[in-house]
Amino acid sequence: MLGPGDDAAVVAAPDRRVVVSTDVLVDGRHFRRDWSTAEDVGHRAAAANLADIAAMGAVPTALVVALCTPPDLPLNWAEELADGLGAEAASAGAAVVGGDISSSPTLTIAVTALGDLDGRAPVTRGGARPGDVVAVAGRLGHAAAGYTVLCRGFRTPKILVDAHRRPEVPYRAGPEAAVLGATAMIDVSDGLLADLGHIATASGVAIDLRRETFPLPGQMRDAAAALGVDPYTWLLSGGDDHALAATFPADTDLPERWLVVGQVQDSAMPAVTVDGRVFGDGTGGWDHFR
Amino acid sequence: MLGPGDDAAVVAAPDRRVVVSTDVLVDGRHFRRDWSTAEDVGHRAAAANLADIAAMGAVPTALVVALCTPPDLPLNWAEELADGLGAEAASAGAAVVGGDISSSPTLTIAVTALGDLDGRAPVTRGGARPGDVVAVAGRLGHAAAGYTVLCRGFRTPKILVDAHRRPEVPYRAGPEAAVLGATAMIDVSDGLLADLGHIATASGVAIDLRRETFPLPGQMRDAAAALGVDPYTWLLSGGDDHALAATFPADTDLPERWLVVGQVQDSAMPAVTVDGRVFGDGTGGWDHFR
Repeated sequence: MLGPGDDAAVVAAPDRRVVVSTDVLVDGRHFRRDWSTAEDVGHRAAAANLADIAAMGAVPTALVVALCTPPDLPLNWAEELADGLGAEAASAGAAVVGGDISSSPTLTIAVTALGDLDGRAPVTRGGARPGDVVAVAGRLGHAAAGYTVLCRGFRTPKILVDAHRRPEVPYRAGPEAAVLGATAMIDVSDGLLADLGHIATASGVAIDLRRETFPLPGQMRDAAAALGVDPYTWLLSGGDDHALAATFPADTDLPERWLVVGQVQDSAMPAVTVDGRVFGDGTGGWDHFR
Repeated sequence: MLGPGDDAAVVAAPDRRVVVSTDVLVDGRHFRRDWSTAEDVGHRAAAANLADIAAMGAVPTALVVALCTPPDLPLNWAEELADGLGAEAASAGAAVVGGDISSSPTLTIAVTALGDLDGRAPVTRGGARPGDVVAVAGRLGHAAAGYTVLCRGFRTPKILVDAHRRPEVPYRAGPEAAVLGATAMIDVSDGLLADLGHIATASGVAIDLRRETFPLPGQMRDAAAALGVDPYTWLLSGGDDHALAATFPADTDLPERWLVVGQVQDSAMPAVTVDGRVFGDGTGGWDHFR
């Protein structure tokens, strides 16, 4: 309603509530300028925030961006970053409405996203109930596999490397899940096991996944074999694809993009297991560049 | 309505519009840890954003904070920062509702503030009309004077040094000005002349200030004399006090906290003058630590 150029922007909030989330990307930690273009980084920075809005069941409306830039950053890098931010926002139905720029030794991009709930209750992490099914929309493990590939000095398979550079987030699946009656939802940014762990803890339930339900793309299987990696580590512990994971009542008629991968169980202790057992070292997390 | 701990927060927006602004503070550029406590920095970071909301005529409702922190930052520094952010937000009627933390070589605090217009039109920079009066609410030049004092190695006068550490922002004067019919408004963060320049440009008018209308506090006059500085440089070009400057129709009955300091004039060329002449080198700005 009022865009950049004044003290603040004005954004429509027809629902009388606004959903807000902030995420920051730091050069060398969340991205590398020799691996990703400025436009890629813009897409990533916007996607990380827009996915959080979708994970509440809301429709993204606006982004504001605080950019900290070293004095020697090429101007066209900043312009291409803005292009990427704007394009990713547009793909989710939102727009960049304002920002701030400061000089800093460290290139840092802090984005805040706003969204509208369109009259629905927010889908939190705390509503999963025993008997619910667990379903995922969007890609898993691709960005993590691409990151591993890049770390080992390769530039292919392209589908994996590109997934690290630009996530493909199923933004519309978020509000869709809310309409379908999702009991809990989260954006997969730390890895599916870790993020379902947040749902298990907030809901006071256990979650068991079935390994056979996860499709293993041929290029991921081949890359894993070539690099000596268990591809399920990528699928179950890799973050940064920003898939959405949600729980639904068992009788929900789910659209095709929601893949059922497990079940919510009654438990005195929150836990996430795969075929009844703890996966890997049990931490299940993905800590970006660490 | 839903605070920290989920993918996003949910904030009431009763007006069906939300005002949003973001500002980032960088260690060594906007603050120095040997001059300001963590709590001071929290107050400053929150105030810089909350003032932008007030300058639209809105009431601040919420803050989200993205903190980038070096690994060696003491935990209690971050806790005291959060205390300062929360206290300043509360002083404006808002609350910190969410955030993100990342590791970074450079301590950086990016804050986004939200606000509610309560049914009023936003007060932009573009509505000043010839014949309007120009008025200021809040302190001018104190933070700049405190900064100069600190730069010269002194720690007093306390009122000036404290003003650099923690601005005292007249948040309520923002919505008050909107109710009174302000035609344009801005948060004084770059210096009164520079910020009125933004109003002059956006409104297509000239602004003339009367030097004699600015009260010169005794401690500022004494500090200026001791340091060999023209105190009007602080008053007219110093930022970071986050006073509000607004234009009003000439017949507006202004409350006491709005001090009339000048007049809007018809002009083919936007300009801000003092007693009819360009002040100093004409740039009028204040570029923080540069």
